[in-house]
Amino acid sequence: MNVRIKWLRNQLMSLNLDGMIVSNPINVKYLTGLSEEGILIIAPKENIFVTDGRYIESVNRNLTLDDEIVAYETKNLNKYDYEAIFMLSENVGFEENYVTYEQYKKYLQTYQVNLVETEGLIENQRIVKDEDEIETIRKACEITDKAYEYIIRNIKKGMTEKEVAFEIEKFMILNGADTKAFDLIVAFGENTSMPHAVPTDRVVQKGDIIQFDIGCKVNGYCSDFSRVVFVEEMKEEYKTVYDFVLGEQKRLEAALKDGANIKTVIKDRETEYRLKNYAIMHAFGHGVGLNIHEAPILRSTIDCTLKENSVIAVEPGVYLPGKYGIRIEDTYRVTKTGCQNLTTSDKDYTIIKLS
Amino acid sequence: MNVRIKWLRNQLMSLNLDGMIVSNPINVKYLTGLSEEGILIIAPKENIFVTDGRYIESVNRNLTLDDEIVAYETKNLNKYDYEAIFMLSENVGFEENYVTYEQYKKYLQTYQVNLVETEGLIENQRIVKDEDEIETIRKACEITDKAYEYIIRNIKKGMTEKEVAFEIEKFMILNGADTKAFDLIVAFGENTSMPHAVPTDRVVQKGDIIQFDIGCKVNGYCSDFSRVVFVEEMKEEYKTVYDFVLGEQKRLEAALKDGANIKTVIKDRETEYRLKNYAIMHAFGHGVGLNIHEAPILRSTIDCTLKENSVIAVEPGVYLPGKYGIRIEDTYRVTKTGCQNLTTSDKDYTIIKLS
Repeated sequence: MNVRIKWLRNQLMSLNLDGMIVSNPINVKYLTGLSEEGILIIAPKENIFVTDGRYIESVNRNLTLDDEIVAYETKNLNKYDYEAIFMLSENVGFEENYVTYEQYKKYLQTYQVNLVETEGLIENQRIVKDEDEIETIRKACEITDKAYEYIIRNIKKGMTEKEVAFEIEKFMILNGADTKAFDLIVAFGENTSMPHAVPTDRVVQKGDIIQFDIGCKVNGYCSDFSRVVFVEEMKEEYKTVYDFVLGEQKRLEAALKDGANIKTVIKDRETEYRLKNYAIMHAFGHGVGLNIHEAPILRSTIDCTLKENSVIAVEPGVYLPGKYGIRIEDTYRVTKTGCQNLTTSDKDYTIIKLS
Repeated sequence: MNVRIKWLRNQLMSLNLDGMIVSNPINVKYLTGLSEEGILIIAPKENIFVTDGRYIESVNRNLTLDDEIVAYETKNLNKYDYEAIFMLSENVGFEENYVTYEQYKKYLQTYQVNLVETEGLIENQRIVKDEDEIETIRKACEITDKAYEYIIRNIKKGMTEKEVAFEIEKFMILNGADTKAFDLIVAFGENTSMPHAVPTDRVVQKGDIIQFDIGCKVNGYCSDFSRVVFVEEMKEEYKTVYDFVLGEQKRLEAALKDGANIKTVIKDRETEYRLKNYAIMHAFGHGVGLNIHEAPILRSTIDCTLKENSVIAVEPGVYLPGKYGIRIEDTYRVTKTGCQNLTTSDKDYTIIKLS
């Protein structure tokens, strides 16, 4: 049986659960490698993947003997087959943070068991990455760095936010990414004051700040990366904010290491923001893996200890409503001594020329 | 107050509900036009949009006075503010098909009311489109037609499925689409036998079938469209399957009109498939709107009456495992007499030359 399912079975046993229904496709991918739609059922006697006619051929191509997973098509299972899966079982885990209330009620009816909340069991295991996962994320980060290096040399007069975002996506895909990791953010000028700006038809202008927040996926694993650059010139007023944000990122890099308490680290940064009178508009960062945002979230409400080989994005930002914003973000591997960069692009003041 | 929220308030009154918590972002967009993350609360005294610091500026830019929606930041609402929202209320609707079990429990705690399932209330209203919605979908369909016309003239020797998919996406975005409507399917040769093939590095070859399943979004509204073309030559055996699929689509077009019962229409097509010994691998179609797949699903289990000005994609397909598949799909407006094409590309046998 594959090691991750073996791990899960051990966990279930120690939680006195007779099995688990894994519905979240990201957790299914983590446990099985499968990207096809379906539900993974860890049952007392076997591991079952229930999918439909659209996916069954592809599922059977992708499963190996070592997985010890039997794939069934939904249409070939009747009421009694479903009831037999957990026959004589009492308590079965489910993902209360993914399953809708409607699905929950259907599961109760279908499997005739007591459904027990698993409180992020698989998500918590996903926080610490193995070497293969880190190497995959590193690849996604390398492609992202290259896309950034490429785009800041190739923004032409008259280009819109949308066009620039598209050129970045194209570069990433033609250079080995499966897909973008999220809707890329490219914001010019006043649009940078919104942390989650959506690219528009706004044309680039001399004097603009450009905010990039970009990332891609390689074999399902994400990168996350933000930089700002200045078009043709850099106004003096930007420097104070830029230096503050970069300083904050450096302090976070040093503090976020194996054994650090997230709450303590972030509370210190929040104090610094308050002293400067800057609003805190979003978390200071988050885990990165099969999800672009995953545990641990870097907020002062998260009282948890950071662990070696977690992968996190650290992204302090300052936003002045109606004026501009500056955010700097890198993806890191957490080590015993601090954060090790997986994205590595330069962070000096960068003034670009329009070609 | 905007007409859609007014409609919802009337519905809630007739269902004896004192309000509703709208959590599904697609339904929020439908009711308010907002694309920002947040929850819409239809409360006895007012309409409230609760969002966070990342979105508040953009939300306030996009709301008009006519909307009569007050936007709050999460961090500015405390326990008592939340409890005051439904003060003296008893029954409040929620979206049981969207809200997770965990959120459901949190809502109970936060709002201190009885939560009542609304059984697709808003989704069902979304089935019939108004003229603006149909015009927006028509735009998405026109861009999709053009992207198809473009790509079949521009596939070059050595191109991979991934590269072709990317060229289509690029064309769509540079020609007015916000984004692709779903992960585009481009499958060559044997990969066409899987209805939901994911583009790979497989290179195009003489004799291949190419399956396209593509669509884009304009202002959130989707198009959905599939064609197959043949590379350099068309093997005789493909004609039987192609003619069958196209014939099925024509029969569906004629039968799917205002007042038609979906179950009856689809049962007829299933009989035809069984007579020919073809497996039925997916639904014969689905509604298209703010979601790429929405009600009504065209399945023989759906006992419901089709209505004028619904927009549906009709997509019969035949798949021969390990060999090939053929699917033809268009997006239509349902009329009193049948289906009116919104996508309009040619459906004759199409043999392309590699450039």
